[in-house]
Amino acid sequence: MSPKGETGTELSEQARVAVVATVEAARRSSRVLARASTQQKNAALGAMAHALADGRARILEANREDVEGARTTQLSPALIDRLRLDETRLGEMITSIEAVAALPDPVGQILASWRRPNGLEIQKVRVPLGVVGIVYESRPNVTSDCACLCLKSGNAVVLRGGSESFHSNRAIAASLQGALRRQGLPPEAIGAIPVPGRGAVDLLLQLDQLIDVVIPRGGEALIRKIVERSRIPVIKHAKGVCHVYVDEDADPEMAEAIALNAKCQRPATCNAMETLLVHERLAATWLPRVITRLQAQGVEIRGDERAAAVAPGIARASDQDWSTEYLALILSVRVVRSLDEAIEHIARYGSAHSDAIVTKDEARAARFLREVDSAAVYVNASTRFTDGFEFGLGAEIGISTDRLHARGPMGLEELTTYKYVVRGTGQVRQ
Amino acid sequence: MSPKGETGTELSEQARVAVVATVEAARRSSRVLARASTQQKNAALGAMAHALADGRARILEANREDVEGARTTQLSPALIDRLRLDETRLGEMITSIEAVAALPDPVGQILASWRRPNGLEIQKVRVPLGVVGIVYESRPNVTSDCACLCLKSGNAVVLRGGSESFHSNRAIAASLQGALRRQGLPPEAIGAIPVPGRGAVDLLLQLDQLIDVVIPRGGEALIRKIVERSRIPVIKHAKGVCHVYVDEDADPEMAEAIALNAKCQRPATCNAMETLLVHERLAATWLPRVITRLQAQGVEIRGDERAAAVAPGIARASDQDWSTEYLALILSVRVVRSLDEAIEHIARYGSAHSDAIVTKDEARAARFLREVDSAAVYVNASTRFTDGFEFGLGAEIGISTDRLHARGPMGLEELTTYKYVVRGTGQVRQ
Repeated sequence: MSPKGETGTELSEQARVAVVATVEAARRSSRVLARASTQQKNAALGAMAHALADGRARILEANREDVEGARTTQLSPALIDRLRLDETRLGEMITSIEAVAALPDPVGQILASWRRPNGLEIQKVRVPLGVVGIVYESRPNVTSDCACLCLKSGNAVVLRGGSESFHSNRAIAASLQGALRRQGLPPEAIGAIPVPGRGAVDLLLQLDQLIDVVIPRGGEALIRKIVERSRIPVIKHAKGVCHVYVDEDADPEMAEAIALNAKCQRPATCNAMETLLVHERLAATWLPRVITRLQAQGVEIRGDERAAAVAPGIARASDQDWSTEYLALILSVRVVRSLDEAIEHIARYGSAHSDAIVTKDEARAARFLREVDSAAVYVNASTRFTDGFEFGLGAEIGISTDRLHARGPMGLEELTTYKYVVRGTGQVRQ
Repeated sequence: MSPKGETGTELSEQARVAVVATVEAARRSSRVLARASTQQKNAALGAMAHALADGRARILEANREDVEGARTTQLSPALIDRLRLDETRLGEMITSIEAVAALPDPVGQILASWRRPNGLEIQKVRVPLGVVGIVYESRPNVTSDCACLCLKSGNAVVLRGGSESFHSNRAIAASLQGALRRQGLPPEAIGAIPVPGRGAVDLLLQLDQLIDVVIPRGGEALIRKIVERSRIPVIKHAKGVCHVYVDEDADPEMAEAIALNAKCQRPATCNAMETLLVHERLAATWLPRVITRLQAQGVEIRGDERAAAVAPGIARASDQDWSTEYLALILSVRVVRSLDEAIEHIARYGSAHSDAIVTKDEARAARFLREVDSAAVYVNASTRFTDGFEFGLGAEIGISTDRLHARGPMGLEELTTYKYVVRGTGQVRQ
């Protein structure tokens, strides 16, 4: 047996059959979804929003069960908070579904068309990916967010949330499936894996004849495990070690505002700054003041030797720090001699997510934008804008840290592929 | 250790070090390649074409060594033919390089640009993928074809040909590397794995921090093995079980010409027809004549019951036949009752590569184009046109049978990804 074939052995035969049946049903339904009209899909999304509102009591009851379970197994308060649903959060889930219904339908869009000298008319047309597998942790809103994005883009979805949110996810999925059924669409297009435990994920990742892509959303360990085990193509949503480089020709006030925003506005996100790089000309003047401001907002600073020289008392960064995604109010700070040193630092330690330069010098800005190879590169703006909504995509299923298929924020279009439609008048190849 | 970490153990430590060093050097060189100007890359391609001409004697000598080795190990005559180089084939390799030099540079193309209400200017810009790994069999021309496509698209490449063509590939790569060196580009950007044997491939597939994508070119078994073992994203170039459906309203002569062309013009290609589906109204009239014509061209026919009824003496198709890629002068033939039955047959047995309908009925043509979910769908043309050159892409690194990133013929654009370039005036997120 192949290396990737050795997993998934923890499951009982009954559980295995249940998982495969769910995925096979999603596969079958994907052909119906791919052909559904925009009107049908929008009507279904409207029904899904209603169903969450109508099912409120059942969903919140299921969620209480999960939260109690999480307390019993002593999950961290932060995790329990992410797990908890209330009227407000449920209201946000409903609003999200309505927002997706209002977005343009990507399916059927003609991406390009041309005519060949032999008269063949070729069109490149957007079509759904097919069946999208989502493996995620904790937050039950992911269940409805992903279900509605996949539905709008004509895909069936197979959802596999964390065991800690099993009851919540099941209740949400049941409501959404009921809505599809009432709208004449196959409820199996929103597939919820009916078995808790890790073995079900391992099995899922073997089903490459049934699932077209797996999108993992969660911590580094989850994502690594999935990449290692999956036979199905994976689009990773991994870590963001984001940098702001303050150039010698930066506007000092702008640089300060951007540094504070990129670090403090929401430090637990992947597009928050983790390392501040400062040109040596600003080390003695600009940096100490900004460090004080950051510290006043609760940020712990870990600096290199030259940063420590101008801001005595800060901790020293280890080599490990430069490549760490803190997701917290911690910041590493390095003083660099040049733009080149900044670019080299980012290439060596960064994660190619989002990186910014603050400068008034156009030539250096252009070099940074060209030579820093990240999903999003910024001049004179906060890294926090790397986000489907902020970019204007209207929605987001996540932020890809991969280079293939989709890079950066993934909206509806990134949940599609294309096919070539070729019209002839009897052409044969010579 | 993870399931995918258990492979690659056959290699000696020395061989392991040599493989990793080659890939690391390619990775480093990829940053230089990504920044190279169109002019630099075209000059390098010109030098590469010259280098193959100048190195002719060495390359042909190395190839003779491979061919002798292949005879000794009793490879099939077909494989030995694919392995053999001569002046003509070397000349074609040189012409291909010159053709790629003449193509537009995809790197730096602006795919879209827009302005957000907060004033941020966003551009989506094409950039190289990074390091492309190619694992292939037999034909040594793949070495230069892939090297020049990757170079033009700003990618470093790591080439891993079959052991049977080891000396040829090494001689070709050495010539091309010399050309890069003389043009001031890093020769390591064309990495040739310096170790024969399977263990090197297994090791390569573990290096997901160094290689961005693996493109396997070869038989089904090779591709399956790579998908099972790779931690790196794979773009598969797998089989084509292509169909031509002759509708009740087909122009009989056009349908005959298309069927003959799709099967016979070059049967060993992935876009050749393997199954002919014929509407029952044409079974008694059109089909017997076409079967006779196909047989006259040496095609072995395997039909279902209804085909056999009108063409006595043909073999019967087994269930296995419908999903077999013959790559030879064999054709399975089925008589269907309707367009629906044809679409169902293709969905069930096809490989979503290239499928055609022949019909004068516009509504049925539209349904076929919409409901058959293949990389290329045709009305009134031969499936043989699924090809980078025939589609007008100017070149082809292969034909993707995957849905992610690239589907169908892959040219230079499909060897790129994109990044978001964002220009601000001090914007921070609220």
